[in-house]
Amino acid sequence: MNGSPLGTSVPRKEDRRLVTGRGRFVGDLQLPRMRHVAFVRSPVAHARIVSLDAGPAREAGYRVFTQADLGGIVLRAQSALPSYVETGQPALAEGKVRFAGEPVAAVVAADRYRAEDGAELVDVDYATLPPVTVAWDAGAAAVHDEAPDNVLLERTFDAGDVDGVLAGAHLTVERELVTNRHAGNPMECRAGVALFDPADRRLTFWSGTQVPHLVRNMIAELLGLSEGNVRVVAPDVGGGFGVKAVLYPEDVALCAIALQLPGTPVKWVEDRVEHLAAATHARDHRYLLTAGFAADGTLLALRADVTCNVGAYSVYPWTAGIEPLMAGGLLTGPYKLEHYRATVRGVATNTAPSGPYRGVARPASVFAMETLLDDAAARLGMTGVDIRRRNVIRPEDIPYRMPSRLVDDSGHYDECLTKALDAVGYDELRAEQQRRRGTGESPIGIGFACYNELTGLGRAASAGPRMPFRTGHDACTVRVNPDGRVTVFSGVTSQGQGLETTVAQIVADALGVRYDDVDVRIGDTDASLWGFGAFSSRQAVIGGGAAHRSALAARSKVLRLAAGLLEVDPADLQIEDGVVAVVGSPDTTIGLPEVARVAYLESNRLPDGIEPGLEATEFYDPVRGAFAAGAQVAAVEVDRTTGAVRILRYACVEDAGRAMHPQIVDGQIAGSIAQGIGGALYEHLVYDADGNLSTGTLLDYLMPTSAEIPELTIGHVARPAANPLGVRGVGEGGTLGPNAVLAGAVSDALGVRIDELPLSPSVVWTAARRAAEDAGKTPVEPGGRHSD
Amino acid sequence: MNGSPLGTSVPRKEDRRLVTGRGRFVGDLQLPRMRHVAFVRSPVAHARIVSLDAGPAREAGYRVFTQADLGGIVLRAQSALPSYVETGQPALAEGKVRFAGEPVAAVVAADRYRAEDGAELVDVDYATLPPVTVAWDAGAAAVHDEAPDNVLLERTFDAGDVDGVLAGAHLTVERELVTNRHAGNPMECRAGVALFDPADRRLTFWSGTQVPHLVRNMIAELLGLSEGNVRVVAPDVGGGFGVKAVLYPEDVALCAIALQLPGTPVKWVEDRVEHLAAATHARDHRYLLTAGFAADGTLLALRADVTCNVGAYSVYPWTAGIEPLMAGGLLTGPYKLEHYRATVRGVATNTAPSGPYRGVARPASVFAMETLLDDAAARLGMTGVDIRRRNVIRPEDIPYRMPSRLVDDSGHYDECLTKALDAVGYDELRAEQQRRRGTGESPIGIGFACYNELTGLGRAASAGPRMPFRTGHDACTVRVNPDGRVTVFSGVTSQGQGLETTVAQIVADALGVRYDDVDVRIGDTDASLWGFGAFSSRQAVIGGGAAHRSALAARSKVLRLAAGLLEVDPADLQIEDGVVAVVGSPDTTIGLPEVARVAYLESNRLPDGIEPGLEATEFYDPVRGAFAAGAQVAAVEVDRTTGAVRILRYACVEDAGRAMHPQIVDGQIAGSIAQGIGGALYEHLVYDADGNLSTGTLLDYLMPTSAEIPELTIGHVARPAANPLGVRGVGEGGTLGPNAVLAGAVSDALGVRIDELPLSPSVVWTAARRAAEDAGKTPVEPGGRHSD
Repeated sequence: MNGSPLGTSVPRKEDRRLVTGRGRFVGDLQLPRMRHVAFVRSPVAHARIVSLDAGPAREAGYRVFTQADLGGIVLRAQSALPSYVETGQPALAEGKVRFAGEPVAAVVAADRYRAEDGAELVDVDYATLPPVTVAWDAGAAAVHDEAPDNVLLERTFDAGDVDGVLAGAHLTVERELVTNRHAGNPMECRAGVALFDPADRRLTFWSGTQVPHLVRNMIAELLGLSEGNVRVVAPDVGGGFGVKAVLYPEDVALCAIALQLPGTPVKWVEDRVEHLAAATHARDHRYLLTAGFAADGTLLALRADVTCNVGAYSVYPWTAGIEPLMAGGLLTGPYKLEHYRATVRGVATNTAPSGPYRGVARPASVFAMETLLDDAAARLGMTGVDIRRRNVIRPEDIPYRMPSRLVDDSGHYDECLTKALDAVGYDELRAEQQRRRGTGESPIGIGFACYNELTGLGRAASAGPRMPFRTGHDACTVRVNPDGRVTVFSGVTSQGQGLETTVAQIVADALGVRYDDVDVRIGDTDASLWGFGAFSSRQAVIGGGAAHRSALAARSKVLRLAAGLLEVDPADLQIEDGVVAVVGSPDTTIGLPEVARVAYLESNRLPDGIEPGLEATEFYDPVRGAFAAGAQVAAVEVDRTTGAVRILRYACVEDAGRAMHPQIVDGQIAGSIAQGIGGALYEHLVYDADGNLSTGTLLDYLMPTSAEIPELTIGHVARPAANPLGVRGVGEGGTLGPNAVLAGAVSDALGVRIDELPLSPSVVWTAARRAAEDAGKTPVEPGGRHSD
Repeated sequence: MNGSPLGTSVPRKEDRRLVTGRGRFVGDLQLPRMRHVAFVRSPVAHARIVSLDAGPAREAGYRVFTQADLGGIVLRAQSALPSYVETGQPALAEGKVRFAGEPVAAVVAADRYRAEDGAELVDVDYATLPPVTVAWDAGAAAVHDEAPDNVLLERTFDAGDVDGVLAGAHLTVERELVTNRHAGNPMECRAGVALFDPADRRLTFWSGTQVPHLVRNMIAELLGLSEGNVRVVAPDVGGGFGVKAVLYPEDVALCAIALQLPGTPVKWVEDRVEHLAAATHARDHRYLLTAGFAADGTLLALRADVTCNVGAYSVYPWTAGIEPLMAGGLLTGPYKLEHYRATVRGVATNTAPSGPYRGVARPASVFAMETLLDDAAARLGMTGVDIRRRNVIRPEDIPYRMPSRLVDDSGHYDECLTKALDAVGYDELRAEQQRRRGTGESPIGIGFACYNELTGLGRAASAGPRMPFRTGHDACTVRVNPDGRVTVFSGVTSQGQGLETTVAQIVADALGVRYDDVDVRIGDTDASLWGFGAFSSRQAVIGGGAAHRSALAARSKVLRLAAGLLEVDPADLQIEDGVVAVVGSPDTTIGLPEVARVAYLESNRLPDGIEPGLEATEFYDPVRGAFAAGAQVAAVEVDRTTGAVRILRYACVEDAGRAMHPQIVDGQIAGSIAQGIGGALYEHLVYDADGNLSTGTLLDYLMPTSAEIPELTIGHVARPAANPLGVRGVGEGGTLGPNAVLAGAVSDALGVRIDELPLSPSVVWTAARRAAEDAGKTPVEPGGRHSD
């Protein structure tokens, strides 16, 4: 390849192994003398553990570990937020269980089958306690003694004079909206192999994690090891979506077991039943909203009360604040607003812990905000398009300080919306909607969402969660080997996003070498200096920025060394495809292999003042973040008889900044929309009143397949962000729209409010019936006013 | 521990695993699906391969690889020396075999036993050719077509007017001396495991090598891989002594086989018979010497003709020059001399290749030089002590340019000798020697050697071998982890020398942290940027220097960061035991854990202008070398009836510079003396006239045990060298003395010349008989003149 590979869809580095079936997932790892772990899990949601008898299992030859055997390790997620109630999550339950599926003991055997058999021999006697599964269920029993009212955290965002402005508003809209609990459900469930080498007290933990360096530090601290003696390797990982950005009690238990079985690798690969029951859930929220609008549709004030179901434990290390704080900070989205008061809270229940999941809270909060706008538009006789255009932040408003004090640096929402409307053929759809009216044909509806996605947060922007760390920077090492080829040791990790490729593109571009001559190593804490990991759509911006800076630093040394060898000024040199040439005298060249050879092997030829070696390590911290703008528009057809929703058109236009690899960018957007559609239409984790998960398998928990996902039209408003690569994060934006867009479209088709998700056949059928009943009383035009 | 650990014998880091049986040698490595390799080896010294039939072995289910199957890989050691004749060493012999034991084919099976069985099924038909085993056997058949006279390299060192000065000298001494072929024979033989991952074309080669980075580069080049995709791991290695500083055809074959069996680890652990037959040998030299002396014993001129047996191949990558060039460059040792002409040559024979072995050539050349001095002293009526004192380089001569143009920077030879004489009780020994004279008791004799050992060669000093690389520098990375503990990624390797310990001491000292808080990773090309490896007693000087510089760079960043946090000037800060304190106000402190925490996790607290992270990578190149001075003195008792030599006293005093870990330094000296004693008294690789190795097992090839090694008195003249740590290399010096000291002592005891080594019972008995016969003709006083 000639020229820079940046901006083109080069073949992905990882695909050579992935498409040939040679991926290296944790489950593929085979080690001599490996043993397998099965967890004994609580069958009840809330109970006192009266007794735990491992005797029969031990007598049958199994190694059994209880919380006491592991030394009573407790994960305590910390936050500096004043209202935060710190609670502990034991590696294995002790005394009490707090959700169905909670690990209570671990059994080790020669293979997983036998370990499961052994787990059945562990006899646990539970005295059940009343469970709480609904976060807004006042007066429920306490999940943790530390929080008698189950509120683990509450915070109020307050800006302007909300009550005064609401009182004087032309229109106020009140809504109560409830979103459906669902989960990331990556194709690969959680998995880990832990091996402790007693010779030097080194622990290696192969883990399908999104945050290897953080896991290293947390494991070291929890187990009393030196961080430098804990190596976390995240090899190929089959999807993460935030679910794997958590340190789980199972992870800690696995490592603690390894410490007790020195020299023996212990492996645990989660099955789907475990995953649905015990990996983190998300999006189980209730929004109580009152918004005030001017007659022209201008949003004047918003009062919100947001309750998020934290589940049984404050997720480690992100805390119970992860969803409520994000919901409160970004509820107003890309809409200008001065008067804002939102009280958000995280409430403990006897359900699986909630954690980060692609889009963190915003698929729910965008649904809430967009529903308000649709409602107001209907009442004001405006279109959904007009009310959004009236309120969005515009390029001339940038930088725009949101009422939560976050600063939006995008502003291209109207342009995104306009392009998305064009993409779906908005006018034609409206005409078709009109045509069907009064016919027996299924009605169609159109829905909209605009959203801003906070990506690549630097040290100044990531203050929100008040964690004991500030996730601002990543590191990267660019090493030109003695043969002139390049190995990059990057702090990023990948769960399928193609980071090996992106980092290689960035380095090839900045250093001036061929893409094929760059190899990238990621996901290994021994190999890379530092990376916070994959979350908040941060890696392309921050890990990419670190790769860029490191490559420029390496390039600078290449040029100085080459200049000395060629006896010219470094400023007169350029590098392309690994050849250093004098600008304006293209025959005077020196290849990178020769420069590298001198650097390592022929130090006698080193120009004065130049040290041997050809490697650079740099950090990058964008200080602030880079907002990615987006708009989605969809049209659906609703079958009134069955409640089925068919998506006719779906368009998404984002300002993801510069696209370094257009195919990957579009793949990220498409995948996140697909996941959002799953959440909007199908996925629902339902607990019964006893706290049992009714949707505990993929027979009950519905996930979309490619058959359910429509053709997506993806467009771009690619405005370079204010960072060296001009990029914005792109992994999450797509998930933010579908709830709002599809609920809005169904609402538009039927002319009724939608107050809950998912848009399951029963919800839609019920809404359609209500619409039919209402139609007898108050005619409602699709695209016009809602019924009350 | 408080204060610096440098200079004290702290517990060795590696001993925790080594003394608990948890060492990780290549042989310990178990991997899933591992296969084992046995080599088919030539049973004859020199032959045409008429045919090689792998059919029967393949039909029996074995994988068999021949040179053609491996693509005809040939190792071609390169040198810029004009006289050098480049020859090739095939990975597996093709067409011709050149020594008994040469690998001809490789057989792969599920275990080594079956692989050996398979090897027996490979049918090779040899047409024998006349072998040559003695390098000074004129008119022998050609080993390589490229060198009809078998001379692979010849060089003359020429300084002053040798012939003129010799002609006018008061005394000329002529000697022909022959030294015995022996080998490093580490406790762990050679071993390797190679695994090729086809997913990303990465090869991992676990190898008991002393030079992992060089092996990486060489393997990558020979197999057409990217260097960054070849990882060489030298885990615990059970002794090297230079024998493992070579890239062997077996290594290359093993890696090439791995490439053909993707995903399958292939293992080869050499047995002792293979090791003695096919690992490198050394010290098979002949010295023809003429020296001129003044009446006062001053050495005036030296003419030398040195022939070294190269064996069948020019050792890769060091070339046939490794022994002859070292012999010629350092023959004059620590003695001042202006007029010097030495012609040295490396001659191919049908024996195992010669390679680097502890002390490279100098155990032989020191024997030659010291024999000359003893001879001259006897003829001039001087003592061995006096003639050495007359000629040694003295502190006031430093820097002293030797006639070979090497520059000696030590000069403390007289002091070393004096201390060694004191240590053995020289006067008392002389009295005892006198007392026994005329009694029936066994005679005793005293021998001496002074030597200089060129260590830690920088880019300017390592020009000698004219290799395609210049072995001047090593790299080191010092990483302060977020918990404030330190991990060091050093380019050094260890074969038992305790480098993990030494590097940790250096870093703890320079950075100001506790020794226990420093972990060191070595021997892994993926983990460390660069190291040339373990040879030429270079690692303490160069790898140690790199560790020192990196630690100082890390310390500088710690101080800048701490200064910002404490709001003081960095110059006012000191670090001790991981606590940064303000000088003069000891209560104002900040711990390294907090500083590190800010660097990685709380970037919002980073002082302006300070990047995140706390890591430094630095190189060190001493530019020149650091000579280590040494003197050894021993007294022996010779049994005239049996020829047995009993060592009564043995003292060695060295100027090894600053001793960073006195126990390790003394251990290195003791071990190298023991190895030298083995070479002087026992070890002899004997080829018969057909080129068969007569001493092919440890029943025939005698190695000393602790029972054979006397109590050693080790003393020091520790003058800091001119490098940041003030150290000189210490691994090889001890081996330089024993040949000379023990031959001199036997000669002194019996009053006869010793012209050959080892001092086996037969050699000594023969000498004793000659002495008895001579005694009838010419009375010889022990400690006085030799008989002719």
